Amino acid sequence: MQSFQDFSQQFEERFNLRHFPTHTPTLYDPAQYILGIKGKRIRPVCVYLANELFESVNDDAYFAGASIELFHNFSLIHDDIMDKAPLRRGIETVHHKYGENTALLAGDVMFVTAYENLSKVSARYLPRCISIFNKTAKEVCEGQQLDMDFEKKEQVSFDEYLNMITLKTSVLVAASLQIGAVIGGAGLGNQDHLYEFGKNLGIAFQVQDDYLDAYGDAAKTGKQLGGDIIANKKTFLMIHAREFCTPTANTELDMLIKNNPSNKVEKVLEIFNDCNVSQWSTQLKEKYYNIALKHLDDVAVLSPRKIELQKLAADLMMREK
Amino acid sequence: MQSFQDFSQQFEERFNLRHFPTHTPTLYDPAQYILGIKGKRIRPVCVYLANELFESVNDDAYFAGASIELFHNFSLIHDDIMDKAPLRRGIETVHHKYGENTALLAGDVMFVTAYENLSKVSARYLPRCISIFNKTAKEVCEGQQLDMDFEKKEQVSFDEYLNMITLKTSVLVAASLQIGAVIGGAGLGNQDHLYEFGKNLGIAFQVQDDYLDAYGDAAKTGKQLGGDIIANKKTFLMIHAREFCTPTANTELDMLIKNNPSNKVEKVLEIFNDCNVSQWSTQLKEKYYNIALKHLDDVAVLSPRKIELQKLAADLMMREK
Repeated sequence: MQSFQDFSQQFEERFNLRHFPTHTPTLYDPAQYILGIKGKRIRPVCVYLANELFESVNDDAYFAGASIELFHNFSLIHDDIMDKAPLRRGIETVHHKYGENTALLAGDVMFVTAYENLSKVSARYLPRCISIFNKTAKEVCEGQQLDMDFEKKEQVSFDEYLNMITLKTSVLVAASLQIGAVIGGAGLGNQDHLYEFGKNLGIAFQVQDDYLDAYGDAAKTGKQLGGDIIANKKTFLMIHAREFCTPTANTELDMLIKNNPSNKVEKVLEIFNDCNVSQWSTQLKEKYYNIALKHLDDVAVLSPRKIELQKLAADLMMREK
Repeated sequence: MQSFQDFSQQFEERFNLRHFPTHTPTLYDPAQYILGIKGKRIRPVCVYLANELFESVNDDAYFAGASIELFHNFSLIHDDIMDKAPLRRGIETVHHKYGENTALLAGDVMFVTAYENLSKVSARYLPRCISIFNKTAKEVCEGQQLDMDFEKKEQVSFDEYLNMITLKTSVLVAASLQIGAVIGGAGLGNQDHLYEFGKNLGIAFQVQDDYLDAYGDAAKTGKQLGGDIIANKKTFLMIHAREFCTPTANTELDMLIKNNPSNKVEKVLEIFNDCNVSQWSTQLKEKYYNIALKHLDDVAVLSPRKIELQKLAADLMMREK
């Protein structure tokens, strides 16, 4: 069995090339630019890891992984336009560097390039991969739209937020694992267990993300503590506080959001503490982590083959940044 | 052989339904909205006509036609955002009605839906159809980027404009015919002749478009005469005038563009007339029309089968609006 690091390096060596023609540089250079902002390539590595649960990896894992990584980058370009974000991981966003119109088009050609890579998957696995890919692509768009809708809503319920964040962030990780299983030759049951493993792990990851924003160590996260609170984001934590704090505390939250005082983060954290938001979110994370692990347990391959995915899950849960 | 009208009706009956889920209406209603602005559905009908040159049409023609029509509408939504256009065919554009962010996402899910339809084409034709579709999708994006680049350039050559307009508008019609030939079971030679027929017909169509803007009958076109001149667009006509008019006339064009006088259209048309732009553009249109017809002639099927495509070509050339 190969490790996350092994696969990450294997993928990167092949992916780290120009994916676009050299003509029409005003369109393709901006598209290539964002691929240079290297991430962890977690989604393609999930394809490799799930594939290797069942069968040695071959070109299919690369093409499926590349298509998902390109789709992910397409969604980042378009999300950054919508969010008017000037920076991503400290680097200038595509629309900020090249203008919104070019970024929009660069995203579009990135999407086509994702499909170009996907279409190179072996014919026997291709229809199933395309079907999962299309379903997931639509869900990611739905998640982004719901996120924008929620900004305009006064109240968002736990279930609504859970659904939105699942669509926006978890299903692509889930689909990566599922597609990996498909091209590893796994049956439908195992494909579904890997999907659920990824989906629930993604939710646990997001709970941790929301938690770290309020309770993390700013020196480790590299982000301003309470960034979500300052931006009035409806996170798992805020939604729980809204549902379980006293009416007085709820009114105080309204006022803090309205008046934006300089001690807003401190005051909101006091309310969070009064209704045990920190402990609750830790339990919530554990809940989804355990559901994820149960699905991995249920995958019908010998236990030693699952070690790398178990490690990946544990690393994601333990992270402090 | 069935006529354009027959196929247009057949396609419309099946296409005129909701293409998107009913949940998440904030995303999918805007996507569905633009499909209600009915066009001539010329691209899907081209799929049907090219298919029927070789073989009776079946479901493949619908799925391929629907995917191309959805792709076309995706590109309209995104182009309208880029052009900041409030109206399309007299109807409010998606971004004007629902906001830019939602329009961007609605375009994205429309694109996924295009691929969903394409993936339903029979397995034996699917790889070739996907390959043509992806190549064309990238070219359409390139064309739109070049069009935006040209707005910032002082001079655009005839060849540059021809390349841009071919990518932006002709290749999708060409690909529709080529894909129709593929699913009709045609060989590569015939596929290519139909592609070239469509590409050259598209160019002739665009020459006519530019011509009608300057010399058409406003009562028939329904557009303001000289709209391109007012907007300082670099059209076939303007590019020819720039290349062949006197240095004095060129300086006058510079001044007219700079100062935007109320009689600008009249003055530019005088310069156009001085260098016979009208006659030249009529000849240019004929040139591409004849190249197109030659390729249709070279398609290896009995002549009577080609009548509907010849009619379509003639109708597009004779149009006054």
